[in-house]
Amino acid sequence: MSADALHELRDRLRAFAEARDWGAFHTPKNLAMALAGEAGEVIEHFQWLSAEQSAALDEETRAAVALELADVLLYLVRLADVLDVDLADAARRKLQINAERYPVDKARGRADKYDRL
Amino acid sequence: MSADALHELRDRLRAFAEARDWGAFHTPKNLAMALAGEAGEVIEHFQWLSAEQSAALDEETRAAVALELADVLLYLVRLADVLDVDLADAARRKLQINAERYPVDKARGRADKYDRL
Amino acid sequence: MSADALHELRDRLRAFAEARDWGAFHTPKNLAMALAGEAGEVIEHFQWLSAEQSAALDEETRAAVALELADVLLYLVRLADVLDVDLADAARRKLQINAERYPVDKARGRADKYDRL
Amino acid sequence: MSADALHELRDRLRAFAEARDWGAFHTPKNLAMALAGEAGEVIEHFQWLSAEQSAALDEETRAAVALELADVLLYLVRLADVLDVDLADAARRKLQINAERYPVDKARGRADKYDRL
Repeated sequence: MSADALHELRDRLRAFAEARDWGAFHTPKNLAMALAGEAGEVIEHFQWLSAEQSAALDEETRAAVALELADVLLYLVRLADVLDVDLADAARRKLQINAERYPVDKARGRADKYDRL
Repeated sequence: MSADALHELRDRLRAFAEARDWGAFHTPKNLAMALAGEAGEVIEHFQWLSAEQSAALDEETRAAVALELADVLLYLVRLADVLDVDLADAARRKLQINAERYPVDKARGRADKYDRL
Repeated sequence: MSADALHELRDRLRAFAEARDWGAFHTPKNLAMALAGEAGEVIEHFQWLSAEQSAALDEETRAAVALELADVLLYLVRLADVLDVDLADAARRKLQINAERYPVDKARGRADKYDRL
Repeated sequence: MSADALHELRDRLRAFAEARDWGAFHTPKNLAMALAGEAGEVIEHFQWLSAEQSAALDEETRAAVALELADVLLYLVRLADVLDVDLADAARRKLQINAERYPVDKARGRADKYDRL
């Protein structure tokens, strides 16, 4: 098992799909849909909660949300794999872009999009 | 910097948000919305493509999609952090559940949901 | 022009797609993706707003959101059309189901899902 | 009952929410989340289907999808109402914008976004 969780998950998901002969289903288009579907399940847990309630989930809900987040991650990792995208590299590049778009002195305490700072 | 990409990203995002005083915005509810919004941007790249086209993106589109996947990962990691969920652990648990729900002999070559296998 | 907005929109969208020879793109699968993508754009307007702010949009934002809601409606009407679903009928049936699931005396002042009332 | 389905649904949903004292839950922010959640349920029906399969649903699936489309419509109508947006008007305006963005001679047979035509 790899030292890095993202690579480990990528390899395990690849093996999982291959063992089940799911390659024909795992097109980028289909995986993008599955990803969005799982993200929709995440928000359903939060839609009627206040901000405060969302930060103080009971243990049962928190455990259920954790598995929904896992579903998002699994499809995200699988989608990146079939697109031959290194997810950790892409995330580091995006963080760098965000650091440039949201300089600390301009963005402090503001939720505005970068083109409005 | 951590050896594990998910922990590294979690720590960097936490510092990023703290430096900008974004704690009040980063409620689980808001981050769940941001996650779903980014997943929506991912699917927009694929909505008019055939399965084949989605597996053969031109380089410009693939690079754009990579950054959208990064956005999903960043919000996912941040959401897990504010919920105090270990994302890699949750993903491993979900993989185990999936392995039980989709035994190789029953699930081979089928896209049916586990309750229909 | 029809007296009923949903039928009018259905007919206009059908003519719009036919004039542009978009039938091959307008599969239910693709239209479902487009619908979800537009719903994602709607939430992006609200993700960093408090409940109170979301109810007091400035006029520019409200106008932008109105057009996003329109996008959702257009894809929803088009998707229903290609599936040969009468949207108004389906909505009336669902309202009836909801009335049974959420009786006034049990559901008053509660956001719980019907299976928890 | 109104002659126009959208106004009828708006009025019935308003009465439904008022009878249950759901005003505090029905903020634009929360309704936008509910809308996106329902759109996510729509795509889950289609994610593993080919384009052809998505256009030839069995009757049970088609009936289930119809009710999911109804859910999207109900939240969309309710969200427009609390934002004081006339949904049919907004849709007509957006159709006009689309007619300008996608002239027949340029857009025929192409799925490209208007800024690439």
